[in-house]
Amino acid sequence: MTDHPRDLAALQRRLAEFAAVRHWQPYHTPKNLVTALSVEASELLEIFQWLTPEESARVMADPDRAHRVRDEVADVLAYLLQLCEVLGVDPLAALEAKVDRNERRFPVPPNPPDSHPE
Amino acid sequence: MTDHPRDLAALQRRLAEFAAVRHWQPYHTPKNLVTALSVEASELLEIFQWLTPEESARVMADPDRAHRVRDEVADVLAYLLQLCEVLGVDPLAALEAKVDRNERRFPVPPNPPDSHPE
Amino acid sequence: MTDHPRDLAALQRRLAEFAAVRHWQPYHTPKNLVTALSVEASELLEIFQWLTPEESARVMADPDRAHRVRDEVADVLAYLLQLCEVLGVDPLAALEAKVDRNERRFPVPPNPPDSHPE
Amino acid sequence: MTDHPRDLAALQRRLAEFAAVRHWQPYHTPKNLVTALSVEASELLEIFQWLTPEESARVMADPDRAHRVRDEVADVLAYLLQLCEVLGVDPLAALEAKVDRNERRFPVPPNPPDSHPE
Repeated sequence: MTDHPRDLAALQRRLAEFAAVRHWQPYHTPKNLVTALSVEASELLEIFQWLTPEESARVMADPDRAHRVRDEVADVLAYLLQLCEVLGVDPLAALEAKVDRNERRFPVPPNPPDSHPE
Repeated sequence: MTDHPRDLAALQRRLAEFAAVRHWQPYHTPKNLVTALSVEASELLEIFQWLTPEESARVMADPDRAHRVRDEVADVLAYLLQLCEVLGVDPLAALEAKVDRNERRFPVPPNPPDSHPE
Repeated sequence: MTDHPRDLAALQRRLAEFAAVRHWQPYHTPKNLVTALSVEASELLEIFQWLTPEESARVMADPDRAHRVRDEVADVLAYLLQLCEVLGVDPLAALEAKVDRNERRFPVPPNPPDSHPE
Repeated sequence: MTDHPRDLAALQRRLAEFAAVRHWQPYHTPKNLVTALSVEASELLEIFQWLTPEESARVMADPDRAHRVRDEVADVLAYLLQLCEVLGVDPLAALEAKVDRNERRFPVPPNPPDSHPE
């Protein structure tokens, strides 16, 4: 357990300090961090690769798989936050701006669509 | 611009509502969302694929590339939050638990390491 | 059209010459080529990301999608062959050795399995 | 060791038979196979993620890493061939057509370029 405040900025600072005291910054170029982010996203995908859509909806009912999912979600978020730190990107501001743009780009349709937009 | 509060939980609710009014939930199985997360992480990686480590450190100096980076960071975070929503995973709690585990797993070394642990 | 022989080794030589005359070798480090391979595999995955299993089985019935699939399959194979070239790996020998190992690792079961091995 | 002929089509037939006798075809939808291809490409990328460009050029000098590289190259090629099998795509014809197109798309420049085209 921990008494650190649980917000994104605080976790980002913990991750930065964690890497700094282990002398990992020389490895943490933007290119390497985005590679690690992509690799971790694939490890999360691996859990689902042979599942049917229906099985994927029940994945958290299995305690071992649920633990793996949470672990890989954490890894993806950790590398995303570290990448944003070294690039000076505010991930929440970036997401907010994107949702604003998408609300203009995808008007609410009167009926359900035939397919999900790419 | 927007006057929505800028925190992770609020953005997660906006994303859920955004998808719901567009009738996209049938497509948003955990398997499809994690696939989309992985695809977006690769689109972010694509920006860096031919850059040297030094060029990757200057990527935000180019306004077009900086916009693309922010846009893809937003997409990665958006699909991660939507995946967590359908799975019932708290991403900040998952990350906090992981950092706690990693602090025990990787003791602070006296000297810089020869390589980054895999 | 082309009158080049259509075998893997001949295509590998064409790709090497193609990159050489365009002065692309300095960019074709193993790390960059494997990154490009991973990015192209994700572009292939993107075509399928919102499809049901059944829709994915009919993907070649749509001429535009069929063209995109062939185009991305070509990109994946092109980067795999270029990576093998710079690393000195024989992809067919590697695959043959792997199938030999897998035939010992996965004995033929008497009945269909409940799930695909990871 | 094996006395199977070592060509792409023969390996593709061995892979199809390997999966058939293990009753894995129900799992081998195009969507699942392309997901597995993408996951294996990321496992290959993982070997290189923290390496400098120079270290990546020496990766085969380490016997353990060299074995892992060959193993992951085999996995990528295996899933690419299985995907092509279920889709009815000829990977060599697709690659040849792509190289033909790229020779028209990227004329040979008089001088080395400043960057690799995306």
